[in-house]
Amino acid sequence: MYDYITIERKYGSGGHEIAEKLAKKLNYRLYDRGVVVETCKRMGLSYDQVSGMDEQTPIKAFFKAPGEQLSMEEKIYNTEVEIIREAAEQPGCIFVGRCASEILKDKKCLKVFFTADNDYRKDRTLNVEKIAPDKAEEVMRKYDKKREKFFQLHSGEKWGSPEYFDLIINSGQLGEEACVSLLESLAKS
Amino acid sequence: MYDYITIERKYGSGGHEIAEKLAKKLNYRLYDRGVVVETCKRMGLSYDQVSGMDEQTPIKAFFKAPGEQLSMEEKIYNTEVEIIREAAEQPGCIFVGRCASEILKDKKCLKVFFTADNDYRKDRTLNVEKIAPDKAEEVMRKYDKKREKFFQLHSGEKWGSPEYFDLIINSGQLGEEACVSLLESLAKS
Amino acid sequence: MYDYITIERKYGSGGHEIAEKLAKKLNYRLYDRGVVVETCKRMGLSYDQVSGMDEQTPIKAFFKAPGEQLSMEEKIYNTEVEIIREAAEQPGCIFVGRCASEILKDKKCLKVFFTADNDYRKDRTLNVEKIAPDKAEEVMRKYDKKREKFFQLHSGEKWGSPEYFDLIINSGQLGEEACVSLLESLAKS
Amino acid sequence: MYDYITIERKYGSGGHEIAEKLAKKLNYRLYDRGVVVETCKRMGLSYDQVSGMDEQTPIKAFFKAPGEQLSMEEKIYNTEVEIIREAAEQPGCIFVGRCASEILKDKKCLKVFFTADNDYRKDRTLNVEKIAPDKAEEVMRKYDKKREKFFQLHSGEKWGSPEYFDLIINSGQLGEEACVSLLESLAKS
Repeated sequence: MYDYITIERKYGSGGHEIAEKLAKKLNYRLYDRGVVVETCKRMGLSYDQVSGMDEQTPIKAFFKAPGEQLSMEEKIYNTEVEIIREAAEQPGCIFVGRCASEILKDKKCLKVFFTADNDYRKDRTLNVEKIAPDKAEEVMRKYDKKREKFFQLHSGEKWGSPEYFDLIINSGQLGEEACVSLLESLAKS
Repeated sequence: MYDYITIERKYGSGGHEIAEKLAKKLNYRLYDRGVVVETCKRMGLSYDQVSGMDEQTPIKAFFKAPGEQLSMEEKIYNTEVEIIREAAEQPGCIFVGRCASEILKDKKCLKVFFTADNDYRKDRTLNVEKIAPDKAEEVMRKYDKKREKFFQLHSGEKWGSPEYFDLIINSGQLGEEACVSLLESLAKS
Repeated sequence: MYDYITIERKYGSGGHEIAEKLAKKLNYRLYDRGVVVETCKRMGLSYDQVSGMDEQTPIKAFFKAPGEQLSMEEKIYNTEVEIIREAAEQPGCIFVGRCASEILKDKKCLKVFFTADNDYRKDRTLNVEKIAPDKAEEVMRKYDKKREKFFQLHSGEKWGSPEYFDLIINSGQLGEEACVSLLESLAKS
Repeated sequence: MYDYITIERKYGSGGHEIAEKLAKKLNYRLYDRGVVVETCKRMGLSYDQVSGMDEQTPIKAFFKAPGEQLSMEEKIYNTEVEIIREAAEQPGCIFVGRCASEILKDKKCLKVFFTADNDYRKDRTLNVEKIAPDKAEEVMRKYDKKREKFFQLHSGEKWGSPEYFDLIINSGQLGEEACVSLLESLAKS
């Protein structure tokens, strides 16, 4: 029985779509880009301002001393953490990205990582994400690098580590439908 | 719907026990050490002779030319391959180890890899496998190295690669029971 | 020509000893545990208080807001960063650990990672570090995990990533002496 | 002092060019694609026939029994092994690819792996290898996958494993010249 499911995913693995379908099946609330929208509202910023800096943690060798100014990226992340923690006050949530499993360390989360082989991910990048063929592999790689770095900076764990995650799913091999019902029965069990 | 399930596992992850319980639930035949016993019979060798050389592929830079002698390890492996292929003539099998997913490349296999964090695996190594405390970590490491090497020599793929396997399961996090029912519903779906 | 060399190392690889010898050859200053001693002095704490919390970054989902208190671990790390930056004002430094390559991101550092196979590291753990045989593998693993986590939290990069480091050296294969002269000629070149 | 140097490399890392320059400096013989040319001659085949099947090991679950036919890929590899072993009868060789370090397991080889970050490798792929921009990342990935698989099938070790290789060099960070002189002094030391 899992009230909280956190999802990390390689670009093009379809992890987000699986999360959406799973949320419907389980009647759980889905927190993904909506977190950014809510962050905008709370901070009085436009979506473009926030989404550009979301999951863009600045590397800081120093911890902030009292009195020091926080950067805009740090303020955005703080607001996202706040939103994720508030969301988790009510059980029944699925979180996509943002290293939510670390933010919710005190909860029992089902920690899932989606991947797939390169051909499957490229195919989805072209046909679902509608990225131009000559940009597809670069887009995949850049997003993955960004997500990896963000995750490692906030958790200290390797992105995709099978000792950290509960389950690493090859969505290309299993197919979307099997992934959804697999996680549904696991969440309910 | 999967008629064939192949399992690779880190030492101490409990993958074998999960395979046993899963075989009962699904009413599938389990092929594990029994393959070695059958190999003994067919080759007229004792269990000790065979088990010492099982999963011990000699590294050979050359492919055998017609007329060249096969080593005993090679003959043992050939016999195991034969047994695994014969077994797979009837659907409903679970194979533990021996890189069976490569031997059965032409079948639709559910390819599962079990792991768990070090503390969980060490605990099982001490309490289930009854290895002495001062030997536990070394035993774990040596078995893992042996399994990794055998798998890579026969598949060319990284042991535990999330792009090769369909599912990587952290049995320490999910618990034995959840692993069994997860795979049961996936095999039946 | 490298004025700054930063070293990360797996436990038992002998990276620290190599750093010491290299410092002598190059007439560079070595910053290792001495950073902790200096931290004690500046903070008016005992060595035991500081060394227990050194390289122990607390995981914090939130960035500190102005006015919030820093934890003792954070204050210790801040002091270490300060010492490392001050040290780097004069060229000719070797830094061991503490993710110094990230702290000195604006300098041209030679980034080295030392590793060795398990048998070599275990042998040094027993004979150089004088760890009891039944504890050796556990000590190696725990230190490596701690160093990995610390590095990833501060850099966002995988510990030992060959795309991040300039050079990954197998000290067990090359031997201590060859490692020293290799780095000496590289630093001078 | 190393009489034999074996080199594995990620596509676009410039490992081959470094090997060429190193061979000149050390006055060592270089074995790379020339092995394929020699294979052609010995087998009475055209270059195109051989180069297409070079480093293309067929996956064989069975070891050949005496009397069984070898496939063309196997015969090509056997001829390459023969050429590499004959070459190594005279000290002073550099081998690029073909998992030569395993073929020459009985010799003291300096085992080097070259890599570089993606941007550096892509840049070389476009400007040195003259691959079209829309194909560059795919070409890099496919070659790397092929080399990885070939290496793992013949050695059982992970491609790029820092415990197997003596040295992993980031050629993008160090630059070609530093790589050459680094290996030159190491080979002579």
